[in-house]
Amino acid sequence: MLTTETIERWLGEDIGHRDVTNDVPGETTGKLIATESGVIAGLDAATSVFEYLGVAVTPVVGTGDRVDPGTTILEAFGDAQAVLRGERLAVNLVGHASGVATRTRRAVHAIENVTQTGQTRIAATRKTTPGLRGIEKRAVVAGGGDTHRLTLSGLVMIKDNHIAELGLTEAITRFRERKSFVTKLEVEVETPEMAVQAAEAGADIVLFDNLNPATVREGVMCVPDDILTEASGGITVDAVDAYAETGVDIISMGSLTHSAPSLDLSFRMDE
Amino acid sequence: MLTTETIERWLGEDIGHRDVTNDVPGETTGKLIATESGVIAGLDAATSVFEYLGVAVTPVVGTGDRVDPGTTILEAFGDAQAVLRGERLAVNLVGHASGVATRTRRAVHAIENVTQTGQTRIAATRKTTPGLRGIEKRAVVAGGGDTHRLTLSGLVMIKDNHIAELGLTEAITRFRERKSFVTKLEVEVETPEMAVQAAEAGADIVLFDNLNPATVREGVMCVPDDILTEASGGITVDAVDAYAETGVDIISMGSLTHSAPSLDLSFRMDE
Amino acid sequence: MLTTETIERWLGEDIGHRDVTNDVPGETTGKLIATESGVIAGLDAATSVFEYLGVAVTPVVGTGDRVDPGTTILEAFGDAQAVLRGERLAVNLVGHASGVATRTRRAVHAIENVTQTGQTRIAATRKTTPGLRGIEKRAVVAGGGDTHRLTLSGLVMIKDNHIAELGLTEAITRFRERKSFVTKLEVEVETPEMAVQAAEAGADIVLFDNLNPATVREGVMCVPDDILTEASGGITVDAVDAYAETGVDIISMGSLTHSAPSLDLSFRMDE
Amino acid sequence: MLTTETIERWLGEDIGHRDVTNDVPGETTGKLIATESGVIAGLDAATSVFEYLGVAVTPVVGTGDRVDPGTTILEAFGDAQAVLRGERLAVNLVGHASGVATRTRRAVHAIENVTQTGQTRIAATRKTTPGLRGIEKRAVVAGGGDTHRLTLSGLVMIKDNHIAELGLTEAITRFRERKSFVTKLEVEVETPEMAVQAAEAGADIVLFDNLNPATVREGVMCVPDDILTEASGGITVDAVDAYAETGVDIISMGSLTHSAPSLDLSFRMDE
Amino acid sequence: MLTTETIERWLGEDIGHRDVTNDVPGETTGKLIATESGVIAGLDAATSVFEYLGVAVTPVVGTGDRVDPGTTILEAFGDAQAVLRGERLAVNLVGHASGVATRTRRAVHAIENVTQTGQTRIAATRKTTPGLRGIEKRAVVAGGGDTHRLTLSGLVMIKDNHIAELGLTEAITRFRERKSFVTKLEVEVETPEMAVQAAEAGADIVLFDNLNPATVREGVMCVPDDILTEASGGITVDAVDAYAETGVDIISMGSLTHSAPSLDLSFRMDE
Amino acid sequence: MLTTETIERWLGEDIGHRDVTNDVPGETTGKLIATESGVIAGLDAATSVFEYLGVAVTPVVGTGDRVDPGTTILEAFGDAQAVLRGERLAVNLVGHASGVATRTRRAVHAIENVTQTGQTRIAATRKTTPGLRGIEKRAVVAGGGDTHRLTLSGLVMIKDNHIAELGLTEAITRFRERKSFVTKLEVEVETPEMAVQAAEAGADIVLFDNLNPATVREGVMCVPDDILTEASGGITVDAVDAYAETGVDIISMGSLTHSAPSLDLSFRMDE
Repeated sequence: MLTTETIERWLGEDIGHRDVTNDVPGETTGKLIATESGVIAGLDAATSVFEYLGVAVTPVVGTGDRVDPGTTILEAFGDAQAVLRGERLAVNLVGHASGVATRTRRAVHAIENVTQTGQTRIAATRKTTPGLRGIEKRAVVAGGGDTHRLTLSGLVMIKDNHIAELGLTEAITRFRERKSFVTKLEVEVETPEMAVQAAEAGADIVLFDNLNPATVREGVMCVPDDILTEASGGITVDAVDAYAETGVDIISMGSLTHSAPSLDLSFRMDE
Repeated sequence: MLTTETIERWLGEDIGHRDVTNDVPGETTGKLIATESGVIAGLDAATSVFEYLGVAVTPVVGTGDRVDPGTTILEAFGDAQAVLRGERLAVNLVGHASGVATRTRRAVHAIENVTQTGQTRIAATRKTTPGLRGIEKRAVVAGGGDTHRLTLSGLVMIKDNHIAELGLTEAITRFRERKSFVTKLEVEVETPEMAVQAAEAGADIVLFDNLNPATVREGVMCVPDDILTEASGGITVDAVDAYAETGVDIISMGSLTHSAPSLDLSFRMDE
Repeated sequence: MLTTETIERWLGEDIGHRDVTNDVPGETTGKLIATESGVIAGLDAATSVFEYLGVAVTPVVGTGDRVDPGTTILEAFGDAQAVLRGERLAVNLVGHASGVATRTRRAVHAIENVTQTGQTRIAATRKTTPGLRGIEKRAVVAGGGDTHRLTLSGLVMIKDNHIAELGLTEAITRFRERKSFVTKLEVEVETPEMAVQAAEAGADIVLFDNLNPATVREGVMCVPDDILTEASGGITVDAVDAYAETGVDIISMGSLTHSAPSLDLSFRMDE
Repeated sequence: MLTTETIERWLGEDIGHRDVTNDVPGETTGKLIATESGVIAGLDAATSVFEYLGVAVTPVVGTGDRVDPGTTILEAFGDAQAVLRGERLAVNLVGHASGVATRTRRAVHAIENVTQTGQTRIAATRKTTPGLRGIEKRAVVAGGGDTHRLTLSGLVMIKDNHIAELGLTEAITRFRERKSFVTKLEVEVETPEMAVQAAEAGADIVLFDNLNPATVREGVMCVPDDILTEASGGITVDAVDAYAETGVDIISMGSLTHSAPSLDLSFRMDE
Repeated sequence: MLTTETIERWLGEDIGHRDVTNDVPGETTGKLIATESGVIAGLDAATSVFEYLGVAVTPVVGTGDRVDPGTTILEAFGDAQAVLRGERLAVNLVGHASGVATRTRRAVHAIENVTQTGQTRIAATRKTTPGLRGIEKRAVVAGGGDTHRLTLSGLVMIKDNHIAELGLTEAITRFRERKSFVTKLEVEVETPEMAVQAAEAGADIVLFDNLNPATVREGVMCVPDDILTEASGGITVDAVDAYAETGVDIISMGSLTHSAPSLDLSFRMDE
Repeated sequence: MLTTETIERWLGEDIGHRDVTNDVPGETTGKLIATESGVIAGLDAATSVFEYLGVAVTPVVGTGDRVDPGTTILEAFGDAQAVLRGERLAVNLVGHASGVATRTRRAVHAIENVTQTGQTRIAATRKTTPGLRGIEKRAVVAGGGDTHRLTLSGLVMIKDNHIAELGLTEAITRFRERKSFVTKLEVEVETPEMAVQAAEAGADIVLFDNLNPATVREGVMCVPDDILTEASGGITVDAVDAYAETGVDIISMGSLTHSAPSLDLSFRMDE
């Protein structure tokens, strides 16, 4: 849900106090067109921006659709000034979100040959662009990925600093008591032994952070089947298959959201 | 200037209604460390976030400094809960802004051998991430680039749709009358002939959009010296030297802001 | 986390454009005192309000503490005008949150004799006061209860309308695919048979809504131990022990947040 | 007036970044139904919420109407996802406001036999739920009560700390000069003698705070007819008739707003 | 109370995304100096702005003080960049508010010779600058005037459209029932006869709108002493004494707030 | 662009928590009528306010039109309560903006006889009313003036404190390097000699601040034709022709925005 308040803030940072360039009469139609191949996301956001400005929007493709260069993504019709004012923001939103979706899809494809469908999931992290948490997480879903936790409140994550202070088992016990029954508990481990200990102490998910595939594989084998395993830490699209082969349940990648290049788009006005 | 309102919005989208994980006692020191080489930006924003949370910040490097892997960027000291809550947002901000600065610096270096110092400038565009206009534009400056216009109100840009409706000379005349004396007027042209015409009609800047270096070079030679020339349109870091050799004054690149990968950083807590 | 923006909004709705009454000179000390027995919550919020106004706060009791009439809860010292302006809001916040905590504690006590410690948890619902979601959920925790899901995004809940459309098993399958691995899935059932079916189809939690204790008991016995069971639907503090005796894991009660009377407090100024 | 900004804040705190549960296709009709007797308020707020979401609302009863269990209060028709997203907030708002209206009506009825119509009014206080000042005050009106002052700026109230510092007469004189001619001045007194003195010094309203009915009666008799009298201080619905019999003009009760249980409602979707 | 949110909005509209001009090192002291005679207001607002920016403020004169050209109003000390960024906003606020206070003081003086002290008050109206209601109303007080109602909710005003629909007496009866006991009721009348009728029907204040002094005088004489009388409608400072001579209690003037020229001020930096 | 958020804030500051006066049934038509001659501005803002309230607006005159007393400016039709609630804000906005436009037009006319058309422009300054930057700047344009810089980021202005620290030439060189190519650079000078030096060092605009016409004339003659000259500093409408005769390109006047009396308007409801 993109709020009116957010749309106004984003338009305001782009327009300023007096926009002479776009002060033009008449009505126009604009088309948002892909100029490279990719997976589309951010359509809801772009639609909300145009509708806020009184511009009618017709989406041509759907969220998560893969498009080729030249494909029209949406059409916008209305007062020329309004279309022109919404254009830049709409393109920036769809380009950014589709970049995230496209990179996610690439990672999903990269592991298809080495795992059975659905066995390993590609997930995002909390490394999102400030202000765009929701849009980026939903773009990851559009690309076929998993959002991972949406906020700090959505999952308890026990890390090295907790373990250093309390010990692994005590930390898990303490946080299990304090968390809600709806919330899962994940524990970051450095060795297969810790993974076993975490599973026994009640972890729902075990995270292998910054470990190589061989160690992850060893760890995954130690953990009972009803406990999820996750690998993370600088895993690139090129390296993702090696991790998938370990049998880990989830591979999370910060780069899906913080380093995906924008999808190339063009907005063409009728002449 | 990062406002309290923005910091609260960004922290709120990350924390949610009840953060159990970071509900830990005591004080701690955290260090933000570069794990790859790059140019640092976003320090003011990260500092504002920590200070909002009552965490004392000591910057170790300056905005625009180039760092190597392992360099400490800033130190944060305060209540452990506050440091932990600020960590993710601070890292996301510095990583993103430094990614922009680093890519800008790379483009600036790419043209150093083909132009005299200061002859050609690398500039950003309005293709910024919604909500981050100021942070990204200032990161471009940190990397050695030029912000280009900050908002639609900061420069009048005459495009093909204006020219189609009014004719080139008439469009320039019309907008010169309507704009303020503090505002420059730029005209997007498709040929050297149009460049000449634009210059004669009173353009302050002539933009060659989506033209190859040869055509840009020809255009640049046609335009009087006191009128600035700009090239843009999908120019990559690899291609930027070919455009610099044309003698154009400004090369603007959307990819500086919309497609720069985040700089890799790590936040390490004292144990 | 109570934001500056929220504090300003709440103070603004109480003060108006010109407050003559509190325009008094000098400094003063005020004490927030319980005038009936109860469990204290909302201290962080009240502290934030006073600190925003530049008033120094000394908490005397802790969050979750049980107090008797006459107990001082916190002391506030500063400019008389600031103390007086913060007073009403601070009292309203602590009174409201402590009312929620007190009622939660009562429900927790009501089941202590019929269950082993920790076997059955008292939980809140999404029936919170608009704008106070976080404060009320944390007050439930202060009273010894469980927050239940904090937002719609924190738990997938399959209800009768989903089941009517898709069938129980298909609905569970569909939503399991769409949800994140960090998110649990709960299914609302009307009969023990449906509970069995839900468990087999992959529900993490089975909810018995608006059923009597006998039926809930029967349902709880049908569900495997590693699947949580929850009862809800107009369960009052008086009836809560009958539900606890069924062995259900969670009893959730909207009345904890939407119908708890405010705890009686008094704010006394030094004279 | 419920602002867009408030609606977005309230929906946002309930929905979070990705709501899977309510992501359902099609249109639906929902009915808000009373499941206990009471007086309805908050309809404007619920209507605004649904209309913000593009859901058409048909109110069936009016603000201030008394309803029996089973009565439909309003109907909502629109996209299923939108109806489902608005449901919880709408129910929470109407339940809360109707709880306030219902308790107010009960207090109004409790004094009907002991006073002539309109002789004594039941009034609210500033003890409202933060963020809901307007909704609760208007709910008190819906129940037949008086809002009392809406903000600190709406009435000058001289209290014991003012009197301790300046003396009663001097305090009244001082504040009469500083207040606007549109603003009334109320004085809190502890004895009938102080009431006389306050009236002579120019009070518009005399407040008997935390006094028993006998003392209030004595005080009321001492005060000239053109000066209003008010009693307050922990007066419950059970005790309100004893205060009404004193002939006091206004009885104000914080419990109308801070301790009214929510009215029980159900939202039923068409199947 | 000037909120952080308001200060950030006002600074933001002045600064933009990248302020090169004020990006200067070091600390500085600035003095706000009156360059014409007038009455000072808006000091609290200017102080809040500077303090938000971390600049220390020392007020030299007080709110409501009359100053001569050359008088220093306040001093500000801090980082040069912060002082420079706050300067323009602080000057605009104090200049505007002091302009309002100065014009109010002039009107107050204009009637001093024709009325006894305190007999007739100069009051503002709701014709204030959007966003500055509180600052302007308090500036009127600084000038010696009366705020009049602060919001629509602070006074019930019966106007010609109400009377046309319901009749004068019926309208007064209707609104007396609906308003709170803390709220006064004012009636706009066109003739002395209507004034009598309004007084008898229960008006607290009678407003003579757009009538000449002779008619106002006649009206004032018809109204009982315990009912306030007010004159308004395009009354200028030059004409105010003629209205004061009528014996009317309040003369309200929109021009105090909507047409007062800013007080001339200068902000001088130490060199 | 007037945002929803701004409209809600402005309506909120005027209405308060319970507006009894305007709680009237039925529909009505209101007309906004000029009661003195002037130039109209602020129509977009007033229209946005009414449309927010669901009131249909028909503008009768255009932005920048000159009207005589009695001219209808716009008509508003809708629910009586909505029309009444929007009235005051709409009148305040149009009155204020039209006051600015009218004063600007007067200054523009004052120099028509002494300059050729377009030779000298009347411009505003940053001395605008906090919160109304955009509305006032656009009102200046409606009156025939030039906005001057919209924010600090829109023009680099070198002032005496920069020159004192760095020297004139060095300051210009330093800031030319730091500013964007889209941004002009203006230098404030005190003598014709400094003007020459500034022009040579690369100033785009030279500002003569607080100098008499004779000195300005001398300075203007020293500066090359392709560099703009500006005069400012307490220049009144009466003195503006003397400055225009100097041949200066721009005359900027803070009084256009900070001291223009509101244009007199009346809002008449159908009866």
